[in-house]
This record gives sequence, structure tokens and C-alpha cells, in this order.
Amino acid sequence: MSKGRLEAFTDGFFAIIITILVLEIKLPGTDEAIFPMILHLFPKFVAYFISFVIVGVYWVSHHLMMHYIKHTNRTFLWINLFFMMSVSITPFFAAILGEHSTSADAIALYSGLQVIIGLFSNVIWWYATKRGGLLDENVGRLIIRTMWARNLIAPVLYGIAIPVAYSNIVMAFAIFFVVPIVHIAPTLLDFQWVTKLVTKLAAGGQKA
Amino acid sequence: MSKGRLEAFTDGFFAIIITILVLEIKLPGTDEAIFPMILHLFPKFVAYFISFVIVGVYWVSHHLMMHYIKHTNRTFLWINLFFMMSVSITPFFAAILGEHSTSADAIALYSGLQVIIGLFSNVIWWYATKRGGLLDENVGRLIIRTMWARNLIAPVLYGIAIPVAYSNIVMAFAIFFVVPIVHIAPTLLDFQWVTKLVTKLAAGGQKA
Amino acid sequence: MSKGRLEAFTDGFFAIIITILVLEIKLPGTDEAIFPMILHLFPKFVAYFISFVIVGVYWVSHHLMMHYIKHTNRTFLWINLFFMMSVSITPFFAAILGEHSTSADAIALYSGLQVIIGLFSNVIWWYATKRGGLLDENVGRLIIRTMWARNLIAPVLYGIAIPVAYSNIVMAFAIFFVVPIVHIAPTLLDFQWVTKLVTKLAAGGQKA
Amino acid sequence: MSKGRLEAFTDGFFAIIITILVLEIKLPGTDEAIFPMILHLFPKFVAYFISFVIVGVYWVSHHLMMHYIKHTNRTFLWINLFFMMSVSITPFFAAILGEHSTSADAIALYSGLQVIIGLFSNVIWWYATKRGGLLDENVGRLIIRTMWARNLIAPVLYGIAIPVAYSNIVMAFAIFFVVPIVHIAPTLLDFQWVTKLVTKLAAGGQKA
Repeated sequence: MSKGRLEAFTDGFFAIIITILVLEIKLPGTDEAIFPMILHLFPKFVAYFISFVIVGVYWVSHHLMMHYIKHTNRTFLWINLFFMMSVSITPFFAAILGEHSTSADAIALYSGLQVIIGLFSNVIWWYATKRGGLLDENVGRLIIRTMWARNLIAPVLYGIAIPVAYSNIVMAFAIFFVVPIVHIAPTLLDFQWVTKLVTKLAAGGQKA
Repeated sequence: MSKGRLEAFTDGFFAIIITILVLEIKLPGTDEAIFPMILHLFPKFVAYFISFVIVGVYWVSHHLMMHYIKHTNRTFLWINLFFMMSVSITPFFAAILGEHSTSADAIALYSGLQVIIGLFSNVIWWYATKRGGLLDENVGRLIIRTMWARNLIAPVLYGIAIPVAYSNIVMAFAIFFVVPIVHIAPTLLDFQWVTKLVTKLAAGGQKA
Repeated sequence: MSKGRLEAFTDGFFAIIITILVLEIKLPGTDEAIFPMILHLFPKFVAYFISFVIVGVYWVSHHLMMHYIKHTNRTFLWINLFFMMSVSITPFFAAILGEHSTSADAIALYSGLQVIIGLFSNVIWWYATKRGGLLDENVGRLIIRTMWARNLIAPVLYGIAIPVAYSNIVMAFAIFFVVPIVHIAPTLLDFQWVTKLVTKLAAGGQKA
Repeated sequence: MSKGRLEAFTDGFFAIIITILVLEIKLPGTDEAIFPMILHLFPKFVAYFISFVIVGVYWVSHHLMMHYIKHTNRTFLWINLFFMMSVSITPFFAAILGEHSTSADAIALYSGLQVIIGLFSNVIWWYATKRGGLLDENVGRLIIRTMWARNLIAPVLYGIAIPVAYSNIVMAFAIFFVVPIVHIAPTLLDFQWVTKLVTKLAAGGQKA
């Protein structure tokens, strides 16, 4: 089964999710002046920004995984669909976060969803690498490990954000901003830093 | 006429439908605490989950059918459009189901729609197999029969759910969950079980 | 400039339009029983059905035109964008039609929009056939004329519906249903009837 | 990394944005007659028209840039995502503009967003031309300069519109209409005029 339609379907899906996020920011019916209204909506823009970037992280990760995956099967389609289902709840939980931005519960709920999405992301990669015939033959252990590491950043950090939210809300939001920075920063250095680190770790792991 | 644009169009359509489903879950305007609100929305999440998975079943089925279909014509485009029209009503009927989850009428309405979608799915396959020149020449009778069986699972089970809803609502919802399980479970076994069963039945049918 | 991205963009657009149509049918907040509510929404379903089918007609027409067009340029992209702009207003005017289904003004407004869409459709074909280098070299005069005839059916019939709406609303709605029937019926006969008719007319035209 | 998925993703995104724009025009619940209601919504249609055309300008520009770009990398994906993020806010700011069309603040806010989108558009082109290996080798200095000029038209004009809005609202709206005209008009002349002008300027620049 070719991977073309799965990619087109998932790309269309991601394009819709990042666009639907902005629909959750609704124009208040009041006669408020423009700039106070925008300031008033500031928490919603923050929730929008965080969600846009994290969905962007998932899309780039999916893009990278599919770069190394050559074939798909029905099980893969279904794992991908459940991954998409978890992503599709993000706009709704982002709306809750934007509406109740000072509520530790809203932050915990949002973080919990991101942990689940991160886990599904790992299930995709786990199935692709464990079941024969899906992965490109030239993909080495280093790439497989780097991708694992990459896919674990978001769920681990969001998992930490859950208890943090109940002691310090500002710190929890700080973690939300750390997630995309960790993903984008090495990208700007063309991943040389991460590649070197993982190479060292992998070398260390092979010695041990 | 190439099948590429039909696939891209249908994939885009399915990607939008599964995303629109979540738009039907709306944030209540009340000052309710977060977790009670989520619990309160639980029936809507159930309707969302059921709809996401059944639309996923239709997408995978369409994917499989198009794998065996090599060409399309104008009639095929129109049959596909009417299939899409029936699918596109799902988010609206899912919203009714989420709002009135204890109403047998809502369950019957939703089930009736799924029966119609299932029938259109079969019309697609019937036209593709009966009219010459659309199907891949290498597609044998076994694959044609397996696809028929596959496309009949959802409409038959949903058809049973209609009378059941008026005697036992929980049972009707149980059927809603059986439909995706029947589709996904054999997938996890790589369809070996179903293939063997159909092979036996086909062998029996050829003897008779 | 390749036509691939234009097709993908237009397909994505059409997929969204036919899905957005159903968003205009909103669940009333009342505690009305399910089936009376569905009956109450009947005019909206009619507006939805008419719009879905006419947008389907435009998509199939676009599909056919692009089948014969091999290249695009910047002017073509812009003509296509204005065609899309006119189509994108359909869900809003369909909502007006569904809300005010007994208003001749609503019918006239909707019909007027369809006339404009039909004219843009013809501008696409006019530019593709008149400007050198866009059309496939093998496309003969017969196909060019058939496409013209095809693209004129909807705007002519909708143009007639405008004055009709002010004398007989039922008749205007009847015209709305005639448009897709005229498009789909010959399709079911594989266009042999239309092809023969146009061949005769073309032959007559060449003699004169 | 191939550019195919980036194009498909961005095309899907643009298709959704231009469709979401129309969702911001909402049917008033009043029993107003049809044509007065449409007249009443006129400012919203103006905001819709301006936004549809400017988003069309961005799409055509992106299309042109990707025509000359042969490869992408992770950094490019992220720059493109931030460009998309800025575009995705357009429907919301268009809604504000449609609701408060006589407010200089609304015009300034909308213009400010367009300046940011224009700058991101230039960052895409800057990165593609400066970093080796992304651009097609055959793309000469003339094309690179023409694209720069093209991408600067919208942000410069919208930047001018910000102070203008506070002295003369009609003039600011006039600038909004000038932007697409400047983009589309040379297109209708097949860009011969712009090409000649830029050739002269480039020739002058090389002499100096």
C-alpha cells in the first residue's frame, strides 16, 4: 500500500487543525474599543500561539517519520487515525485553556492531551520500526534513536507541566514555551548539536 | 480519466469531516469548573468518538476500493459525490446524538444515516466491479467478495441498531462500538482470519 | 507553470465548500422532539441538497476542463481565484435560502450568484481556449463546443429562475432541481446523447 | 527533503483560509428583508473581498517562490509555518474590520498584520536564496530581484495605510484595493511591463 494517500490525508488534516485553532478566538459582541478588546483576548492568543506551534511540531515530526517510512498497511492507517483523533481535540482544549488561562485544571487537561498525542506519535514510530517491511532499509539505528528522542521531548515536558500547574501556573506556561523552543532551536543549527549528542550517547550505549 | 484528483478530493473531504466533528463540541459559557464541565460533555465526546471511528472506517474502505480501481468516469465521480454527501451529514447527526444521547429517536436517526452511507459505499463498489474498464484486471473474485463483505458490516449492524434503540439504548450504543471493533480487530491480525473465512465460504460457494 | 498545484488547491477548496454547507444547518437549542425538529429543518436540508449538487456540478466541470488544459499561467491562477471566490459565497447564500425558503428575494439572490459562478466558469474556458499554449493540442473543436454548452446550462437555467421566483416559487425550486438532473442524466448515458446532438449542431454550423 | 508535502500542506491551508473568511459573514437572526440585510452586511463583504484577494496574492507569491525552490529543510518548514500562522489570523482580523469598518484602529490592526505576513513572505525568500542547495541552480539574479520587489509591494503599501487610516479612512481602504490591483494588473499584461522595468533597474544596478 503506497504512502502517498496517507500523507495527503494527514497533511490536509493538519492544515485544517491549525486553521480551526483561530476559529476558537471569537469576536466579542460588545462595543469595546479595538485595542482593549485585543488585549482582553490576549490569553486566547497565547493559547492559540502555543497550540499552533505544538501542532506544527507534530506535523514536522510526522513529516520526518514518513520520510523514513516507505510502505504502510491497514494497521498503520488505524494507528495514524488514532493519532489524528488525539490531535483533533487540541482546538477544543485550547479554547478551554484560552477561556480559563488561570486555572490549573485547564493547564493540566491541555498538558494531559499533549502527553497522549506524544504517546500516539511514539506508537506510530514503534510500529514502523518493529514491523518488517515498512521502514526504508537504509534507515540506521542512529536515526531510529534520534526520532525516539525527538518524539519523547513533548510528552515528557508536558507530563512535567501537569504537577507544576498546581504549584506555579507561570512555570507551567513557561514549559509550554520550552517545548517548541527545544524543537526549533536545534533545527536552526541544522541539528548538528543533537546529532553529535545522540552519536555520543549511542557510542556510549554500544560500549556498555 | 485518472483517479488521482478523485482521491485527493475525497481525502481532503474526509480530513475536513473528521475535523468538523470536534467543532460540534462547544465550550459552555458557564463558570462551571473544568473537570465537571468535561464530565458534563461526556455524551458529546462519546458521539464524537463513535463518529470519528466510523468515518475512519469509511476512509479506510474507500482507500482499499481505490487501491483496486484503476480508472474513473463521470458516473463514478457522481456516485462518489453522493457517497460524500451522505458522509457529510454525519457531523450534524452526531451533534444531535451528543445533545440527545438518551433519545431512541436520535440513535435511530444516526443509525439510519449510517445505513445509507454503507449502501452508497456498496454502490461505489458495485459500479466499479460491474462496469468494464474501471477495475484493475488482476483483482480476483476473492477480493471482490471480501470487499462486499467488508462494506456490508457497518450498514447491517447499524440497521439492527435501529429497532434495538427503542427497546434498549445501552445495547444500541454497544452496537455502535462493535462496528469499529469488527473493522479494526481483524486488521490487527493482518486480516488473516477474515481471509481464511472468506476463502472457505468462497470455496463452499463454488462447490454449490 | 504546472497545473498540479492549481488542481490540488481547487480540489481542497471544493472539498471544504461542500463540507461547510452542512455547518449552516444548526441544531436548534429547543427541547423539541427529534423528528419534528428534523421536519422543521427540512427547508435547510433542501437548500443544502441543492447547493451540494450544484457545487458538485462545478467541481466535475472544473475537473473536465483541467483534463484538457495542460499548462497554467498567472492570469489563469487569478481567473480561477475569482471563480473560487464566487463559489465560496454559496454556503452563505444557501443559509439565507434555507432560512427564508419562501422568499422570492432569497431565491433570486441565490440564483444571481449561480449565474455569476457560471459566467466565471466560462471565463476560465474562454481564456484557456483563446490564449495559446494552455490547452492540450489534441483537443478538437467538438470538445471545446461541448464544454461551452455544458458550462452554459447552469447560468442560463438559474437566470430564468430569477424572474420565475417572483411569480411562482415552486417553479423556481423546480428549476434548481432541473440543473443537476440535466448534468447528471446524460452522464448516466455516458454523454452519447449530448455528443450526438452537439455533433449534429456542429455539422449544421459548419455547413452554414 | 522533497518539497511536495510542503506544497500540498500549504495549498490545503490556503484553501481553508479563503473558505473560512466567508464563515465570518454571519446571517443576522432578525426578520429583516433580504436585500436590506445584504446591504447592511456590505462592510463585511468588503472586508471579505479585500481579504480573499490579499490571501490570493500570498498564495500566488508562494506558488511562484516554490516554482524556483527545489528542496526544503527543517528550518524552511518552520519559517513556512510561522508565515502560515500570520496568514491564519487574517480571518479574525477581517471579522474585526467587517464589524468596525469605520474604526481607524481596526484598519491599522488589519494593516499591521498584513505587514507582518509580507515580512514573513520575504523571510521565506531570503532563506531560500541565501542558504545553498534550496534554490534551483538556473534561477538568475533578475528573478531573485523581481521576487523581492513583488514580495515588498503588499507590506510597504499596508505600512503606509496605518498612518493614513488615522487621517482618512476612505484613503486607507483605497490602498487596500490598490494592493491586489498592483499585483493583478501586470499579470494581465503577462508581466512584460514589470520584467522590462526590473531589467532596466538591474542593468543600471550592474553598471553602478
